[in-house]
Amino acid sequence: MSYQSFKKRTYEILEKGTPDDKWSHRVDVFIISLILLNILAVVLESVLAIRENYQQVFNYFEIFSVIIFSIEYLFRIWSITENKKYQNPISGRLRYLFSFYSLIDLVAILPAYIPFFIGLDTRVVRGIRILRLFRILKLSRYNKAFSHLKQVIQSTKEQLAISLFAVLMLLVISSTLMYYVENEAQPEAFSSIPATMWWGVATLTTVGYGDVYPITETGKLMAGVIAILGVGLFALPAGILANGFGSNLEHKEEKNHNDERPCFCKHCGKKIIED
Amino acid sequence: MSYQSFKKRTYEILEKGTPDDKWSHRVDVFIISLILLNILAVVLESVLAIRENYQQVFNYFEIFSVIIFSIEYLFRIWSITENKKYQNPISGRLRYLFSFYSLIDLVAILPAYIPFFIGLDTRVVRGIRILRLFRILKLSRYNKAFSHLKQVIQSTKEQLAISLFAVLMLLVISSTLMYYVENEAQPEAFSSIPATMWWGVATLTTVGYGDVYPITETGKLMAGVIAILGVGLFALPAGILANGFGSNLEHKEEKNHNDERPCFCKHCGKKIIED
Amino acid sequence: MSYQSFKKRTYEILEKGTPDDKWSHRVDVFIISLILLNILAVVLESVLAIRENYQQVFNYFEIFSVIIFSIEYLFRIWSITENKKYQNPISGRLRYLFSFYSLIDLVAILPAYIPFFIGLDTRVVRGIRILRLFRILKLSRYNKAFSHLKQVIQSTKEQLAISLFAVLMLLVISSTLMYYVENEAQPEAFSSIPATMWWGVATLTTVGYGDVYPITETGKLMAGVIAILGVGLFALPAGILANGFGSNLEHKEEKNHNDERPCFCKHCGKKIIED
Amino acid sequence: MSYQSFKKRTYEILEKGTPDDKWSHRVDVFIISLILLNILAVVLESVLAIRENYQQVFNYFEIFSVIIFSIEYLFRIWSITENKKYQNPISGRLRYLFSFYSLIDLVAILPAYIPFFIGLDTRVVRGIRILRLFRILKLSRYNKAFSHLKQVIQSTKEQLAISLFAVLMLLVISSTLMYYVENEAQPEAFSSIPATMWWGVATLTTVGYGDVYPITETGKLMAGVIAILGVGLFALPAGILANGFGSNLEHKEEKNHNDERPCFCKHCGKKIIED
Repeated sequence: MSYQSFKKRTYEILEKGTPDDKWSHRVDVFIISLILLNILAVVLESVLAIRENYQQVFNYFEIFSVIIFSIEYLFRIWSITENKKYQNPISGRLRYLFSFYSLIDLVAILPAYIPFFIGLDTRVVRGIRILRLFRILKLSRYNKAFSHLKQVIQSTKEQLAISLFAVLMLLVISSTLMYYVENEAQPEAFSSIPATMWWGVATLTTVGYGDVYPITETGKLMAGVIAILGVGLFALPAGILANGFGSNLEHKEEKNHNDERPCFCKHCGKKIIED
Repeated sequence: MSYQSFKKRTYEILEKGTPDDKWSHRVDVFIISLILLNILAVVLESVLAIRENYQQVFNYFEIFSVIIFSIEYLFRIWSITENKKYQNPISGRLRYLFSFYSLIDLVAILPAYIPFFIGLDTRVVRGIRILRLFRILKLSRYNKAFSHLKQVIQSTKEQLAISLFAVLMLLVISSTLMYYVENEAQPEAFSSIPATMWWGVATLTTVGYGDVYPITETGKLMAGVIAILGVGLFALPAGILANGFGSNLEHKEEKNHNDERPCFCKHCGKKIIED
Repeated sequence: MSYQSFKKRTYEILEKGTPDDKWSHRVDVFIISLILLNILAVVLESVLAIRENYQQVFNYFEIFSVIIFSIEYLFRIWSITENKKYQNPISGRLRYLFSFYSLIDLVAILPAYIPFFIGLDTRVVRGIRILRLFRILKLSRYNKAFSHLKQVIQSTKEQLAISLFAVLMLLVISSTLMYYVENEAQPEAFSSIPATMWWGVATLTTVGYGDVYPITETGKLMAGVIAILGVGLFALPAGILANGFGSNLEHKEEKNHNDERPCFCKHCGKKIIED
Repeated sequence: MSYQSFKKRTYEILEKGTPDDKWSHRVDVFIISLILLNILAVVLESVLAIRENYQQVFNYFEIFSVIIFSIEYLFRIWSITENKKYQNPISGRLRYLFSFYSLIDLVAILPAYIPFFIGLDTRVVRGIRILRLFRILKLSRYNKAFSHLKQVIQSTKEQLAISLFAVLMLLVISSTLMYYVENEAQPEAFSSIPATMWWGVATLTTVGYGDVYPITETGKLMAGVIAILGVGLFALPAGILANGFGSNLEHKEEKNHNDERPCFCKHCGKKIIED
């Protein structure tokens, strides 16, 4: 296989190829599995009993993952010139390096190389562990759910922004009022407006842990009114997203409806034309 | 009554017959009542005071139920050859045995026969008790609610899968972040990422029992942001299902609507008749 | 004023008359105010400090209310023969007596007369107090909100019934599973399946008081899965109702749209006819 | 620049001018920033540690803000006669003074001048601090979110009123019933119906702090039924608002849609042009 055709094949395999390209599919499945296993590893490693017994396994798996992800990263940069958008070997590759997906790939491996440059401080190691979580973002390249959700958020972003702004304003107003009402009776839980916002978030999202709540009568009355009126506002983003999903679905159905069923007149046999 | 016509009648009675078939209706009501009474029995038997006083009644009722359900099961297998889909006495019946509804019928009675084969270990008895709950699934054969709900889930399954995937990703990300933030201050409640997921589920579903919550300032800030942004995502499935119900309703209404508004062919002027 | 015209006038005033009938309007406002004051009285009388100081006022107000409501009740029965539906003085009035609104009117006053027939036992007095709350139902005759809500519930009742059935099934299944899982670790909180249903309701409605929650790892895992999957089902009725309101609104808007704006062609000036 | 043209320019700058009016835009940004900083100041000043160290900064910032907002207020009144609606120098300005936005501007500065008239009582100072929060309302002049939200509330106000009425009735009924059921077992938490309403709000909004909950079996049963049936009603306003947003979106989309699909007059065949 020539250098050029090898590069082209690499590009086909890494970027989503044709549906019947077996090797492209296998590599996709392998990388997706490795990402999911990495998430599982992050989760399991946090359990003391597991960490103590399998530390070595986690370390080997981490090294293995970083090697694979690094190879993937390099191969992608090398073969990206097959994409017409990034044709130029230098400027094209540079532009690709700063594209969304490429940056995610970099963030997924870079932290693992940090200890080679800076000393192995405990804080650094801790920070690196958290950054491994971002490997989850590598999934976004393969996942339909991500792109669908992105699309819904895109089409409702104006409404989401409006409701988020309203939510924040309501949070500030509610918390300020409650702070002035409850501060005297509970100087610790309602020590300041930012502290009262913890009550505000817990109440308006209806989580209601029960660690902070008003005890004065005025406070309860005000909290009641805020809850009844405010809960609806905090539930808005969910409703907007759900509607966004819904209207997406309906559009699809309508399209299918129109495309698939041409109708014919039972009397004269001609196609029925709607205005 | 001949053997053949008796089998045919059995089939008619057990499988939902014509609406005016009185005996089919009576047998349906009887079996549905027995299923509901079984659920009630499982629930009531768990109450110590009731169990102690009426143990014998529950035992007799269990024996009675198992006998009826076994007879029903055998009659179904015997008469199923009347169904064109399962016409062949051997291969047809075998295929029916492994159909969805038949397996549920089996699961509903099988556990009761286990003690005849294995010793009456307490653990076994306990397990059998739980399995009785699956008799509830026998209702799915008769219930319109089940089929309607199934239909709605079917038509929104893609959206539900997407939101469920997003929900799980959000849960993992939130819990990982909170684990790193709160672990030091509350090493027990936030002992590991899986443990922190208990906080995550309680918060993002807005249940908020209040047994675990952040106490550090960073933790509260992060929990607040997660709650405001995440609660909407966790409420998505509910909204999607509700929309699914809604659009089902609208389709029905539109159909009725169309019936009332006759349309006319633009070519010949005659009324358009849809199939 | 003759007997006949007085009866007719009484009927006009009590049943919602024409919009410009001043006396009908005044009587409506008076009765509605009296109902609202009765609700307020029930609420305020429950506060010890208020009850102790104003017991006499509450007693007088109760006597006054019962007298007015009794007069209203009698006048309604007397004048109902003016309604063509209840024209016959005996059989018509009897049918009216058992109509929905008339029964509510009776329930609103009857309890006050009980002490004349049975001894003034404390339990009786207590029961009577609760029954006064049903006077709230008298509002349903006047209130648009009631009729609108009734209409929405009517048009979505099939869906509501389905989701309510699904909700109850889920509650039974979740509680049974959690009972078997948590009963050993917390024999008191999860003492029986009905007791565990208290946990189930608190969790699936996302109220989450925090008085009962699983403590075993299996219990937490199961509770988490139940919460993520079940919360959506419990939120269904809300979504269905909201959609019902929404589609009602849209129908209205569409109607207004079509009725109010006839359009004209800019070229030939003739009215545009849509097919 | 002449007096007249200066007044006209002032009016253009303060009221939202043309999109390419640079100075109008700059003044808008400046005032919006000042409002947001004022909110931030209110929030931060409530934190003891910050208040102690930066009291002087907050005082200077308050004086600065009041001066700017006062100048803005006076300039607005002076230049408003450029608006045809308020052309008359005296009666026009008076009418403007009592317009919605003008009153908000007044409320935003007035409290700061109170100490000059009344003695500097601690209670007065406290009250003034709270009133500063209303400066947030000044944002409503500039903010699209406010106007959009207002529009949605406007178009769904009838439905919102109905559901709010239903919510309040349900709250009164639930709390009354629970009061009679739980009062004996928990005479403190369920001391009166208003006190029980605190439980009612926490339950029906699903906040569920966990400071009050039924402990008797009857109470738990009733609370369970209330929660299952009532939670849906309390979530209605959220659903109605979300639908309102959704239908707004759809209307827009339909409009765009219509633009793309030209219609033709049935009489003359020419394209129909809408205004």
